[in-house]
Amino acid sequence: MNTWGRLFRVSLLGESHGDGVAVLLDGVPAGLRLTVGDFAGDLRKRRGGLTGTTTRREADRPLLKSGVRAGRATGAPVLIWLDNKDVDSGGYGEFRRKPRPGHVDFTAGVKFGGFNDIRGGGHFSGRLTAALVAAGVVAKKMIAPAKIEARLLEAGGETGAVGVSRAIQEAMAEGNSIGGIVECRVGGLPVGLGEPFFDSVESGLAHAAFAVPGVKGIEFGAGFRAARMRGSEYNDPIVDAKGTTATNHAGGINGGLTNGNELVFRAAIRPAASIGLPQRTVELPAGKRAEIRIRGRHDACIALRVPVILEASAAIVLADLMAIDGRIPKIWR
Amino acid sequence: MNTWGRLFRVSLLGESHGDGVAVLLDGVPAGLRLTVGDFAGDLRKRRGGLTGTTTRREADRPLLKSGVRAGRATGAPVLIWLDNKDVDSGGYGEFRRKPRPGHVDFTAGVKFGGFNDIRGGGHFSGRLTAALVAAGVVAKKMIAPAKIEARLLEAGGETGAVGVSRAIQEAMAEGNSIGGIVECRVGGLPVGLGEPFFDSVESGLAHAAFAVPGVKGIEFGAGFRAARMRGSEYNDPIVDAKGTTATNHAGGINGGLTNGNELVFRAAIRPAASIGLPQRTVELPAGKRAEIRIRGRHDACIALRVPVILEASAAIVLADLMAIDGRIPKIWR
Amino acid sequence: MNTWGRLFRVSLLGESHGDGVAVLLDGVPAGLRLTVGDFAGDLRKRRGGLTGTTTRREADRPLLKSGVRAGRATGAPVLIWLDNKDVDSGGYGEFRRKPRPGHVDFTAGVKFGGFNDIRGGGHFSGRLTAALVAAGVVAKKMIAPAKIEARLLEAGGETGAVGVSRAIQEAMAEGNSIGGIVECRVGGLPVGLGEPFFDSVESGLAHAAFAVPGVKGIEFGAGFRAARMRGSEYNDPIVDAKGTTATNHAGGINGGLTNGNELVFRAAIRPAASIGLPQRTVELPAGKRAEIRIRGRHDACIALRVPVILEASAAIVLADLMAIDGRIPKIWR
Amino acid sequence: MNTWGRLFRVSLLGESHGDGVAVLLDGVPAGLRLTVGDFAGDLRKRRGGLTGTTTRREADRPLLKSGVRAGRATGAPVLIWLDNKDVDSGGYGEFRRKPRPGHVDFTAGVKFGGFNDIRGGGHFSGRLTAALVAAGVVAKKMIAPAKIEARLLEAGGETGAVGVSRAIQEAMAEGNSIGGIVECRVGGLPVGLGEPFFDSVESGLAHAAFAVPGVKGIEFGAGFRAARMRGSEYNDPIVDAKGTTATNHAGGINGGLTNGNELVFRAAIRPAASIGLPQRTVELPAGKRAEIRIRGRHDACIALRVPVILEASAAIVLADLMAIDGRIPKIWR
Repeated sequence: MNTWGRLFRVSLLGESHGDGVAVLLDGVPAGLRLTVGDFAGDLRKRRGGLTGTTTRREADRPLLKSGVRAGRATGAPVLIWLDNKDVDSGGYGEFRRKPRPGHVDFTAGVKFGGFNDIRGGGHFSGRLTAALVAAGVVAKKMIAPAKIEARLLEAGGETGAVGVSRAIQEAMAEGNSIGGIVECRVGGLPVGLGEPFFDSVESGLAHAAFAVPGVKGIEFGAGFRAARMRGSEYNDPIVDAKGTTATNHAGGINGGLTNGNELVFRAAIRPAASIGLPQRTVELPAGKRAEIRIRGRHDACIALRVPVILEASAAIVLADLMAIDGRIPKIWR
Repeated sequence: MNTWGRLFRVSLLGESHGDGVAVLLDGVPAGLRLTVGDFAGDLRKRRGGLTGTTTRREADRPLLKSGVRAGRATGAPVLIWLDNKDVDSGGYGEFRRKPRPGHVDFTAGVKFGGFNDIRGGGHFSGRLTAALVAAGVVAKKMIAPAKIEARLLEAGGETGAVGVSRAIQEAMAEGNSIGGIVECRVGGLPVGLGEPFFDSVESGLAHAAFAVPGVKGIEFGAGFRAARMRGSEYNDPIVDAKGTTATNHAGGINGGLTNGNELVFRAAIRPAASIGLPQRTVELPAGKRAEIRIRGRHDACIALRVPVILEASAAIVLADLMAIDGRIPKIWR
Repeated sequence: MNTWGRLFRVSLLGESHGDGVAVLLDGVPAGLRLTVGDFAGDLRKRRGGLTGTTTRREADRPLLKSGVRAGRATGAPVLIWLDNKDVDSGGYGEFRRKPRPGHVDFTAGVKFGGFNDIRGGGHFSGRLTAALVAAGVVAKKMIAPAKIEARLLEAGGETGAVGVSRAIQEAMAEGNSIGGIVECRVGGLPVGLGEPFFDSVESGLAHAAFAVPGVKGIEFGAGFRAARMRGSEYNDPIVDAKGTTATNHAGGINGGLTNGNELVFRAAIRPAASIGLPQRTVELPAGKRAEIRIRGRHDACIALRVPVILEASAAIVLADLMAIDGRIPKIWR
Repeated sequence: MNTWGRLFRVSLLGESHGDGVAVLLDGVPAGLRLTVGDFAGDLRKRRGGLTGTTTRREADRPLLKSGVRAGRATGAPVLIWLDNKDVDSGGYGEFRRKPRPGHVDFTAGVKFGGFNDIRGGGHFSGRLTAALVAAGVVAKKMIAPAKIEARLLEAGGETGAVGVSRAIQEAMAEGNSIGGIVECRVGGLPVGLGEPFFDSVESGLAHAAFAVPGVKGIEFGAGFRAARMRGSEYNDPIVDAKGTTATNHAGGINGGLTNGNELVFRAAIRPAASIGLPQRTVELPAGKRAEIRIRGRHDACIALRVPVILEASAAIVLADLMAIDGRIPKIWR
């Protein structure tokens, strides 16, 4: 539901065009250093501003509303709140009647009987990922010195910066959008994270990654390529007593447990659902065919913003698994 | 951990070479018809016996040890037990000292301090999936008339039956193994299954799928291909008031919620870790380079057996989401 | 931890002398009517102001920060925030060094390594129960027409209003405090709430009640008196097909399940820990014997304020059990 | 539901007159020594055989069906199975039509639509507590050197052994039953167990205790007596740096956290529901008044058998809280 985790628990709340978005963290170790400044870097990475991302501008200055005192976590639940300010809620009413293709308008409308906040996607908005990134900042501190780094591998089928830039420009000129692939690597993890049978490391990371809007695929190590490999090629030879392997087709995971090598996974991001081009839909409740054209500020390529979000989703999963494995002290001096 | 689910809860237990494997089901509706015969079909599909699968032969006759009376679930927890009989536990001791590449020997050995049952992979064995398939049989009844069907799309890079068969024969002749891709489709689901933010349908299905040994990638709808599509191409036009779409690039899911169209996902299966060829590893604890050669009965292509297992993993996730959504009666007449 | 519930989930946060206290509710049905005014009655009942309760005065005007739009729940998480304003944080530093008897100073100080917010009890403060009461307001709507009513049975050993009033006056004059007993009754519940084995109705209600600061005992129906009854006297004769019983020694619960009769339980409330009289403690870290005298605004009898809090704790438990039993619609028209 | 715990998870299953009863334990540390003999003592204490307890005789020889190898836990789920053998299932059919007062016949019949196994109480039977006691044996090992001891304080209103014995004899002669009070003490606990806000130590212990059939009240330390004490009397003076208190009215718990002193609680046990005397009930479905007389083997005083069961319920709660607090090693050497 809106909460992830067993010992380190992350609850997301808020709406795109409501008062704000927030994350409630339970299980933050007492004494962990936390200040408003810690969040600036990752929130900036997530925020729009580059060519190809929305022109919505939020200050994203987090308020630490509970659980922190004198720059340290107290051990009580930490609420991190981000105000919404740059909100433009016009024109959403139409989407209840004419649901946008690729959007949650239709499914959420049915699920919540039309009571869902549809403005800017409401609780389903990518805006919620700002709160997820804030959670990631805390989680990254908890798992240090393990270190997570994600980057855009390709967008619009292009891999170099020039090609990606051109693909985005083209899509914007068309009023269109493009997808991409993001890769995430985690170094410095201990051996043995993951809880059989159901809570394999892949299970947890995939679970949280697929909560990120736009993710439609995930693969670990060789991933889909492994389906075409032979065992003699795929199996990573072990070369020392720490379990280091000569290759890393397993992506740092055997039997659902981290093996001490670099953890590697990639996520496929679909193109942004909101495009400027006319699209086919129906007019509810009758279901008569209709056309819709979406105006407003949108991302041409959400994949550009996903790396830091995927880092956050990975960080909260790994922080919880490390806590379960007894590797996170209850009190930080 | 070893339990999945919130209202329909599935706990797996047992070892490859212990007394047996089993699944404990909590939340089975009272009155649901359950007899030993119900399990035969799916367990047969999972069992070895085809060319390319292990020669281990288990009768897989489930014992309904609790929660069932006179052919009906009583509402109490249902324990389904499968005896192990065709067990050959020789030779595993060596793998503690010389961990097999691609196996859980090293990671589980570290995690459990060497106390884990290493025979046949112990609790990490693919044998556990027999119990998962049994859970799936019950879950499939709960979600009817929705219907799940999985099939092998490709193995060893081949898609037709002749090519797959030849690839398997070749791998076996080499003492090698091959991977494959399995596709799963679910028809007849209602609109709106899934619980934001973290329990999107993709999140749940991926979580359970990655618990299945050998799965290294999963994608929904267009999946990784979506990363190279434009929004105008990817977005599925809505064509009627029930939300039917003209295409299904989203795989039946928008915003993490089922949209009423066919749910489609694919999983990448790595080649079986056990191969007959010599492999490089180390001798513990010193870490001296060593060679290992695995004898015994193994699958050349575990992907052959995965379809019914993936059906089961999907069924338990969907049964729980349907229960959460209030769609599964507490009492079945 | 800080969250209760499986389908209706209640998370408490905040501190006595921080920015405020709050409750995050997940699983509120879409369409449920919710306005700021709904909370006034119960929050007023909980608030100080009577003789015998603290002179701290909070407006307790709840802010509905998320999950509500146009007076209706949207189906997304609902954050209800209560600002702290009338805060007097002087003098708490001493209690780290000289922990107050009966307080959480010592235990929380050890658990959180001294990083806990000690001002006014921090996260352990009775102030948190304002947020619990707010959760109760929502839960009461969800379980209607079932109705919860709690009242003070006795305080300081006195049962009548005159006696109670005199006992409180005496305690205040002494700089002392008194305990009391609160009874809670719930009418209109369906038969069969409760989930064996561990989630009996008594288990859930007791769990939540013991989270309320000051509760040291709970009993259902005849309770401790049942220990001295004979079966022939205790067993409640069934008198009609709806399960109505002639007596109600079971307190409306058989086998952990509601039986359709009035649910009845009583909670014992210890005297408030903060008293004006000098008390024996030690000076940390050496442990030298010391005396402490607590100044400030305190309740002479917290039991006066407990009835509406106990109603809230019961309401959130029953709302969750009703949701699990499929009795709470997902959408409220 | 049927599972308790977050890191040490206990799932009960089975029926009184089915194949057997069992407990599935997840989170048992790898390497913990476990043999069949470990269970004999506690299971014997729980078993009938004394005057005043049922004449049903079960060998209660546990089978360790999974998760144990060579006398040590492997880290995988442990299934402990107890066969039912001395089963006499005659005569239960009548109770569906004429529900027994004080029994679960009516409530479970409604909840499970009549599909529940009614023989001997089915899944609601006190027989399940044998499995709980088995779980307690494992939990006690995990929390050592902390030590739990429960004893019968009174039965039928009598406190001495002679009086209790006479009260039981009298009740039996009448075909009647009596209740009692059991006290449980735990020594050697660390300071700080318990997780605010909802998972106070009292909350957890009460939750599990009320899952035990027959428990109708619980109190900690001074308990209900505290309601009539003054703060100056109730507050336990702290006398050393370890938090030792001069008195123990708080029962070893402040603010929901253990304070390092002896943890003390008492449970009220109602008289056994099954008595030989005629009782008033109705005949379903019409609801015509009827009389019922229960034959068979029953306890005159279930409180006699409750001490070791309450120890078990306390042990599983404390083991989980200690695991959450990071105090239970993952690997036992």
